[in-house]
Amino acid sequence: MELNTTTKISEAVIRRLTDYLRCIRCAGEAGRDMLTSLEISERCGLNASIVRKDLAQFGAYGVKGMGYNVRDLTRQINKILGLDKLKDVVLVGAGHLGTAIIRYPGFADVNFNFIAAFDTDPEKIGKTIGYAKVYPLEELKPFIRKHAIQIVVLTVPSSEAQAIVNDLDPGYVKGVLNFTAVIFPPKQNNMFVHNIDLAKELEVISYCMKNCLSQGS
Amino acid sequence: MELNTTTKISEAVIRRLTDYLRCIRCAGEAGRDMLTSLEISERCGLNASIVRKDLAQFGAYGVKGMGYNVRDLTRQINKILGLDKLKDVVLVGAGHLGTAIIRYPGFADVNFNFIAAFDTDPEKIGKTIGYAKVYPLEELKPFIRKHAIQIVVLTVPSSEAQAIVNDLDPGYVKGVLNFTAVIFPPKQNNMFVHNIDLAKELEVISYCMKNCLSQGS
Repeated sequence: MELNTTTKISEAVIRRLTDYLRCIRCAGEAGRDMLTSLEISERCGLNASIVRKDLAQFGAYGVKGMGYNVRDLTRQINKILGLDKLKDVVLVGAGHLGTAIIRYPGFADVNFNFIAAFDTDPEKIGKTIGYAKVYPLEELKPFIRKHAIQIVVLTVPSSEAQAIVNDLDPGYVKGVLNFTAVIFPPKQNNMFVHNIDLAKELEVISYCMKNCLSQGS
Repeated sequence: MELNTTTKISEAVIRRLTDYLRCIRCAGEAGRDMLTSLEISERCGLNASIVRKDLAQFGAYGVKGMGYNVRDLTRQINKILGLDKLKDVVLVGAGHLGTAIIRYPGFADVNFNFIAAFDTDPEKIGKTIGYAKVYPLEELKPFIRKHAIQIVVLTVPSSEAQAIVNDLDPGYVKGVLNFTAVIFPPKQNNMFVHNIDLAKELEVISYCMKNCLSQGS
């Protein structure tokens, strides 16, 4: 099975693929070789036809009555999402949230490797969080160049976010994961910026508690 | 303007509403009375027609050439999302991520009020994080009953997540925001569970760095 990885897909589909990946990974760890769309759908709270449709978009079809090969599907979703190679990532802002993110167990599973953190607080500089050493903020730019860093995770106070993003070198940095309250346009200087607002997740749940969510995208 | 808040909408639309809310709130703080769909769309990186369509779903139409009334629209999106009343929230798991979440500045804006945290670590019990005091885990159940807590934020190790969710009283708890690696079905014991996996956000950005996202849902 070779998946078509050039198809343009919406963020909703990408988010579902990341869910499928987790289900399939769990099944693989539990010794399963094959997994049906129904099993995937039940774990993800979706309709099995959505699972089949999503995977068929990339040329992945299950075998009738047997489902999908767990190892192949894992490898191929990893490839679609660009997770098939280890990526070096740096963090800017070594506060509570930054520390939590570096220590977050899920990042190792997806081949993200935090190799350094940057902060302005002299108390933090020189310490390590996980395997990442904390450097002074002014060393961010040369570090990115030296190590050809493509992904930056931003956990600084909101007031500092714009200046840091402006100063990133788009010749190296391709993606910014922005945890500050500043909303950046999705494309900025040729970098893709993904805005995460944790409060937003509570807003979604607030809505869901009042109303029933439709399952589709 | 009175919005229709009974319409069933998809999670993608809810997520966009939370984006609009942030833009509109910023504009209001900057002294703006009116905001056009084009201005909202540019800040959110969307097409203006999507903004108009989303808002029209709830009966909100801008005035031609003037746009939407900032105060009315803020109030009404807050109402759609159930953010118009202060909600008491408790946190289970007072580690790095839990601490970061309680101190996250965005939660106060959306009327979420962390009133307590629960942990098994005797070193943490009795301390306070933000305004939340840390209690022993065995006090979670009586606390929820006494204070009629509807929302629980879960930041415990994954191995403990299922037991805690099983033990929540669905007579009180309506929503669980799950930051552990365990994927719960969206509905469990009549509670809505919203699974957040921070690694997933890096997966989304990984995909986006390779491919161009379609703007729709």
